[in-house]
Amino acid sequence: MMKYFDSEALGNLDKLHRINLLNSCSGFKSANLIATKSKNGMSNVAIFSSVIHLGSDPALLAFITRPTSVPRNTYKNILETGYYTINHVSEDNMEDAHHCSAKYDASVSEFNQTNLTEAYLTDYDVPFVKNSPVQMLMKFREEHHLKINNTIMVIGEIIGLFINDDLLQDDGFIDLSKGKVISINGLDGYSIPQLKTRLPYQRPKEVLQL
Amino acid sequence: MMKYFDSEALGNLDKLHRINLLNSCSGFKSANLIATKSKNGMSNVAIFSSVIHLGSDPALLAFITRPTSVPRNTYKNILETGYYTINHVSEDNMEDAHHCSAKYDASVSEFNQTNLTEAYLTDYDVPFVKNSPVQMLMKFREEHHLKINNTIMVIGEIIGLFINDDLLQDDGFIDLSKGKVISINGLDGYSIPQLKTRLPYQRPKEVLQL
Repeated sequence: MMKYFDSEALGNLDKLHRINLLNSCSGFKSANLIATKSKNGMSNVAIFSSVIHLGSDPALLAFITRPTSVPRNTYKNILETGYYTINHVSEDNMEDAHHCSAKYDASVSEFNQTNLTEAYLTDYDVPFVKNSPVQMLMKFREEHHLKINNTIMVIGEIIGLFINDDLLQDDGFIDLSKGKVISINGLDGYSIPQLKTRLPYQRPKEVLQL
Repeated sequence: MMKYFDSEALGNLDKLHRINLLNSCSGFKSANLIATKSKNGMSNVAIFSSVIHLGSDPALLAFITRPTSVPRNTYKNILETGYYTINHVSEDNMEDAHHCSAKYDASVSEFNQTNLTEAYLTDYDVPFVKNSPVQMLMKFREEHHLKINNTIMVIGEIIGLFINDDLLQDDGFIDLSKGKVISINGLDGYSIPQLKTRLPYQRPKEVLQL
């Protein structure tokens, strides 16, 4: 049986119920830690489930942030310095990653409040999350203000990409399940997907004239 | 061991290798079928891995399209009619969903070339994908042209939401794994995540004065 919610039914739900429902209904989401450093040297790490692939040439990723929400320090630091890192959440750092959703003041680094460890892997003064199976150095490129709900899409270019080589296949495919990479369901559901299959490139089948 | 690619190394990869790598590195992705109908009555269904949650009030989802790529009929139909549906890919329709990535002409409906079945579940003349565990009626709200790589972000409001009630929890959480909902890895990797845990709402821990 299918349950149906129209706009009115969605509008009548209490807030928590509505948030749970509407955060689950886009499908499984990526789980990433975005790490930054402020101009005055305070590091910050926040969990995001909105990172998406935008293009391969140039290599671009986008994510959504809310100026008034917890990870606002992330956004402020990105604008200040122009750089950030995106690090995959895995089974090993899942609980610490989730704790980064707590509302800390900008004077507190989540690296001090969790077992997450900051690592400086390049010449840039921006922290990576140590032991994350995929770690990316990002250069801020473009932002779009989405007036419809006062959110911001931040677009960055991948200028450095670290991958645990157990995950990397000969054709460039990264087998995320070999790194126990997390996928998020809703606000608080954590899953560890297993790769089932890779399907071949599809060409059109003969078109039947009906 | 970590393998490292800087911008130059990424630029030197052959095209397929680069596409595989950069499509895998954002993390696990949602798997959705977007179905539309043109003004002249031709239905269309295309697979997308870029659908993201944008907000709960109003209930908004966004996805990325490329004016010059396969699913351009999706974009054209959305602008023509103002409506579309987003339907989750599950283990049961995974291979048919993947076939929708083949480059068909606008005169061909993917519903005729696969076992996917169009269903009309509301008063709107827009097809849903029958038996998909989560099916959403979307009203087009806003678009943003992302000049950086000539892509378009399409934002729509959920005005109708069908959920297989086996998936729905009392607090509004949709347990996607109960519907065998797919998560995509890269261009062509398909996984069926199992929910491991739901983690509690996080409050700040005492801040240690270092």
